[in-house]
Amino acid sequence: MLFMTRMQVEFPPHLSPEQVADLQAREKEYSGNLQRQNTILGIWRIVGQYANHALFDVPDNDTLHEVLSGFPMYPYMSITVTPLAKHPNSIR
Amino acid sequence: MLFMTRMQVEFPPHLSPEQVADLQAREKEYSGNLQRQNTILGIWRIVGQYANHALFDVPDNDTLHEVLSGFPMYPYMSITVTPLAKHPNSIR
Amino acid sequence: MLFMTRMQVEFPPHLSPEQVADLQAREKEYSGNLQRQNTILGIWRIVGQYANHALFDVPDNDTLHEVLSGFPMYPYMSITVTPLAKHPNSIR
Amino acid sequence: MLFMTRMQVEFPPHLSPEQVADLQAREKEYSGNLQRQNTILGIWRIVGQYANHALFDVPDNDTLHEVLSGFPMYPYMSITVTPLAKHPNSIR
Amino acid sequence: MLFMTRMQVEFPPHLSPEQVADLQAREKEYSGNLQRQNTILGIWRIVGQYANHALFDVPDNDTLHEVLSGFPMYPYMSITVTPLAKHPNSIR
Amino acid sequence: MLFMTRMQVEFPPHLSPEQVADLQAREKEYSGNLQRQNTILGIWRIVGQYANHALFDVPDNDTLHEVLSGFPMYPYMSITVTPLAKHPNSIR
Amino acid sequence: MLFMTRMQVEFPPHLSPEQVADLQAREKEYSGNLQRQNTILGIWRIVGQYANHALFDVPDNDTLHEVLSGFPMYPYMSITVTPLAKHPNSIR
Amino acid sequence: MLFMTRMQVEFPPHLSPEQVADLQAREKEYSGNLQRQNTILGIWRIVGQYANHALFDVPDNDTLHEVLSGFPMYPYMSITVTPLAKHPNSIR
Amino acid sequence: MLFMTRMQVEFPPHLSPEQVADLQAREKEYSGNLQRQNTILGIWRIVGQYANHALFDVPDNDTLHEVLSGFPMYPYMSITVTPLAKHPNSIR
Amino acid sequence: MLFMTRMQVEFPPHLSPEQVADLQAREKEYSGNLQRQNTILGIWRIVGQYANHALFDVPDNDTLHEVLSGFPMYPYMSITVTPLAKHPNSIR
Repeated sequence: MLFMTRMQVEFPPHLSPEQVADLQAREKEYSGNLQRQNTILGIWRIVGQYANHALFDVPDNDTLHEVLSGFPMYPYMSITVTPLAKHPNSIR
Repeated sequence: MLFMTRMQVEFPPHLSPEQVADLQAREKEYSGNLQRQNTILGIWRIVGQYANHALFDVPDNDTLHEVLSGFPMYPYMSITVTPLAKHPNSIR
Repeated sequence: MLFMTRMQVEFPPHLSPEQVADLQAREKEYSGNLQRQNTILGIWRIVGQYANHALFDVPDNDTLHEVLSGFPMYPYMSITVTPLAKHPNSIR
Repeated sequence: MLFMTRMQVEFPPHLSPEQVADLQAREKEYSGNLQRQNTILGIWRIVGQYANHALFDVPDNDTLHEVLSGFPMYPYMSITVTPLAKHPNSIR
Repeated sequence: MLFMTRMQVEFPPHLSPEQVADLQAREKEYSGNLQRQNTILGIWRIVGQYANHALFDVPDNDTLHEVLSGFPMYPYMSITVTPLAKHPNSIR
Repeated sequence: MLFMTRMQVEFPPHLSPEQVADLQAREKEYSGNLQRQNTILGIWRIVGQYANHALFDVPDNDTLHEVLSGFPMYPYMSITVTPLAKHPNSIR
Repeated sequence: MLFMTRMQVEFPPHLSPEQVADLQAREKEYSGNLQRQNTILGIWRIVGQYANHALFDVPDNDTLHEVLSGFPMYPYMSITVTPLAKHPNSIR
Repeated sequence: MLFMTRMQVEFPPHLSPEQVADLQAREKEYSGNLQRQNTILGIWRIVGQYANHALFDVPDNDTLHEVLSGFPMYPYMSITVTPLAKHPNSIR
Repeated sequence: MLFMTRMQVEFPPHLSPEQVADLQAREKEYSGNLQRQNTILGIWRIVGQYANHALFDVPDNDTLHEVLSGFPMYPYMSITVTPLAKHPNSIR
Repeated sequence: MLFMTRMQVEFPPHLSPEQVADLQAREKEYSGNLQRQNTILGIWRIVGQYANHALFDVPDNDTLHEVLSGFPMYPYMSITVTPLAKHPNSIR
């Protein structure tokens, strides 16, 4: 079941550069694992913003929330979630 | 070069059901061709709306505008276009 | 799997009172069936508006879109869909 | 008398993890009590957000405000309140 | 139980001046009755707009929706409803 | 001359509980005096928010600004002001 | 007593050029009279829009509503009204 | 050449009362000079807000930016600028 | 003196294809003349929309309004106007 | 390939004047280099705001993101990016 998300990151000013670097490293690993499991089918940087669009494939809403809230940067992200259905014109 | 689009369709009330059916048939063919050419890499219905998200791969902005404005339903669509870049955490 | 929806109805001015009454009768039957099947767990009028909140239980996004787009008044409704997950404080 | 609420939580950065954990524990107890008294008929996590939808059954507006402002996390929540009436198509 | 409303009127262009005058006459009578019954405690024109603020006193949400949807101009109004509670600083 | 206001309170995080309590006590006295002078004809809590609607009767705009900016909590309030005129359907 | 207004004109498509010209001629006369009476102290076109800012001096809110609703184009205008007070830095 | 501005002031919490008073004194002097030079033709407090509308007469856009960015409170203001043209109905 | 504009075109449904083609031909000529006079320094299609960004160089606001309101499609355009000043980092 | 951007700067309050001056100096150099390389074809201050419009010419989206995220002030900027195509009425 597919969902399109938009995640926007905003770090509070009190985080040190080391804390940010640590978050980014853990985020990269977490995100890579989700891609290798085909939970994230694609993730793209939005040009000019600390934000991304990602396409998730999950069995249900509870799993999606669990996956999203597990991102190391989750406390610093604003996320919108758009449920997707098969498009009648899709050939895939 | 990738772009995420959101297209929302709103038909004016004066269109007859035949005109709508004709537009939809031509739209399906046009969309299918773009998918077969890998210009559209994915297209998904947004649940509960006459709208879709689509992922385009085009060589440049002019091509994208030409492709979008060629949709048979283009006069009845509101389109937003988000330029995408490679995400540092993407493994693909 | 649960979703909260908000549906707002706006009829175009060219519909006759008979057409509106027919739509409303078919809507009532369609909605009643969904409630008897426990696809709609609850539906409530928003005070002062031709709009409602409804709670859907469906197996997946495709089913939800099929159910929503099957409403007789679907062409005249604006719908927002909010995916829900179990709340950690819920006792049910 | 029914109301749909949407509560969004945002903690200020100066709260310690212990203060947050304490707030969450008290919130869970407070929320559980309201559910056992059938003041909250349902509460659901909004996927991807520190937010929920809840359905309240209260005798009047004053009681609703008293209940909402009694949440331990009330100072850190943005709340919208939608008054609900019986829907003509509801079979319950 | 008190509610503040904001009602904005917009007539569709196909209404004749006679139809508008008839709606306005019936609206005046309906509104006057609600005021004499103390269901409307106050109604004020918003300067420069075909809109008003009104203060309603009703026993419950269902009654409020019944009263609002009974306005002759209801099909041509956008209404927002704000539930009110006693203010701790109010001396009345 | 009547005005409807909406005042929303947001305290900055650096205020101590004592400072907040002092502000609230002075606010209550200030508001009570305005009500006894019939400058405020009504004040109501908006359910679920640290906000109110109030109905002011003042001789002119300058007086209204003087009264509003005199609230002890004025530095922490966002205020919207709606000028009101007599409604043609009002019976009072 | 001063108010800043913003008036935006939008004619419905069914008005004939003659009706529009007649409205504009009557508007010009009405506006000129208000300026000669010093009810309008200034009126300016907003560049690129069929809209204006105007500064009104009226004895009270009821007069302002009467003046605004008397504009020949009033049924085709969206108006916002901002109450003004003397600025502490004004030297006039 | 005329421009209507709206300036909204918001001081960050770390400014001391002395710093605020100093800013206000310098602002008053700066604003007074602009009025005496007929660069500001009028400035008005927006009722209930730490904001104003002002009418500027400047030779060009560069001068307007220079004047606006020279306000002592400029770092703490949000400013919108509306270019004005002569209104065809203006008699001045 | 420079201004950035954004013009969005929306034709009413009653225009015939011939009327639209005539408007577009006259628009092209009008726009070309403004470019040849260096009143428009650049005009670009916004991808996926019947809209453009344009950069105008005019002696004053009145001229800009005259130029904009002279576009053949002006009655069908929504225009926003942003006054520009020299940027301190510009090397031109 | 052209893009119009809008960049808005907001410094957090903890930056010292020296840090701001250093950022501004490095920004000026970085911006100047991009202009000399014809990556930025024009950059303009938005009157009354710490913001600019700029016109970029880049080979693709990835380059644009790399260029934008390389601005020394990037962490303190909100950026919107509008893809541009050739306008049919452009004579250049």
